[in-house]
Amino acid sequence: MNTQAAGGHLHLEEHMQSSKILTDIVIGMSDGLTVPFALAAGLSGAVGPDHINLIWIAGLAEIAAGSIAMGLGGYLAGKTEIDHYNSELKREYDEVERVPDRERDEVKEFFSGLGLSNEVQEKAVEEMTKDKDKWVDFMMKYELGLDKPDPQRAKKSAFNIGFSYVVGGMIPLSPYFFVTDGLSGLKISAVITLVCLFFFGYFKSKLTGVNPLGGAIRVMVIGALAAGCAFVVARLIQL
Amino acid sequence: MNTQAAGGHLHLEEHMQSSKILTDIVIGMSDGLTVPFALAAGLSGAVGPDHINLIWIAGLAEIAAGSIAMGLGGYLAGKTEIDHYNSELKREYDEVERVPDRERDEVKEFFSGLGLSNEVQEKAVEEMTKDKDKWVDFMMKYELGLDKPDPQRAKKSAFNIGFSYVVGGMIPLSPYFFVTDGLSGLKISAVITLVCLFFFGYFKSKLTGVNPLGGAIRVMVIGALAAGCAFVVARLIQL
Repeated sequence: MNTQAAGGHLHLEEHMQSSKILTDIVIGMSDGLTVPFALAAGLSGAVGPDHINLIWIAGLAEIAAGSIAMGLGGYLAGKTEIDHYNSELKREYDEVERVPDRERDEVKEFFSGLGLSNEVQEKAVEEMTKDKDKWVDFMMKYELGLDKPDPQRAKKSAFNIGFSYVVGGMIPLSPYFFVTDGLSGLKISAVITLVCLFFFGYFKSKLTGVNPLGGAIRVMVIGALAAGCAFVVARLIQL
Repeated sequence: MNTQAAGGHLHLEEHMQSSKILTDIVIGMSDGLTVPFALAAGLSGAVGPDHINLIWIAGLAEIAAGSIAMGLGGYLAGKTEIDHYNSELKREYDEVERVPDRERDEVKEFFSGLGLSNEVQEKAVEEMTKDKDKWVDFMMKYELGLDKPDPQRAKKSAFNIGFSYVVGGMIPLSPYFFVTDGLSGLKISAVITLVCLFFFGYFKSKLTGVNPLGGAIRVMVIGALAAGCAFVVARLIQL
């Protein structure tokens, strides 16, 4: 709609496709940047200079675990969506066959909810329920609010989220490879990561149509709070 | 709909409300069970018996970081949804005022997409566009696919997800407090966590209408894979 009206359906679908990929990247990257950053920050205050390798062992183990959990989590979510859609589709076809009057009432209810007059409601229901496929399609989309999911989505989504998590996670972790004590690593890691979170938050907010500066600051503050809290928790236990 | 038809709107809204809370718990718990479990598993193979405390320092730091990142992430997501809805709402009111003909065409396009005859389309458009509030409401819901978000959702969602993450995360971590070496802790943790993941996956699948046994196994396998991968990564670096 709006300025894209001329572009039509193809344009809209392309737009939705790329926004789904961006959503996956946003999901993966934001957790990837935040959690390994906070974990490494927490450990940097708890392990001595002799055990700095433990920071990146734990960090890399977390990246491995987190990317698989999120990536496969995304895959499962996609699969579940497809299974759910198919089971509801089957049920709607079944109901249209078994209890057509009740289903017809539900179509009428939809049009009545739109505020149309009784006359137009009746006519719309009559036309809508002529073709069984169209009828079920309508029930799926407007009564249950379910869009037909792309069967390839689950796999793509898993890969995008998992990969983004690894890329995001390596950023806060990398400084610890080059320093001799945890706190020096933390300082460099905090600067790099908070800058990344700021730009990432800015970009993310632009995508979703929210005030970019406010969004950037919010994302950065979450990262800082998570790291600060992990640091305090680790220090408290160690004492 | 279906068997709930008699219950009407209130019933449906209650149903959606509780399913949103369950969704939050499911999101928080599944990651809470999986990631701290996998991280502790990874570290159990990499730290000696003298440093078993590092497993739970890292584990608790991860739970602190993860619960804040996910909880505040949920809060941000909720806030973003509200901001997005309000900015689109403003735009629709503006367009209905400025370019009513184009907006009227878009309403007609919707009814034409449903497969209604030209006559019913015309009548429906006429009735629909009489009341400006109803018209905009319609555009928001059926053209943009946006439902009015609950302004209290963001806060509740943040708390539910974060709290579930902490509860989920303490389960795989707890055995390490009572053992003297990492691998013994891992054995107990793996048994407890995989059993929990199985039940959790079963319950989650029931909620979403997917085959419960298949879903339970899938969730459990993701947890096992994440832990296995973290274990291998940590071992490889340590060597």
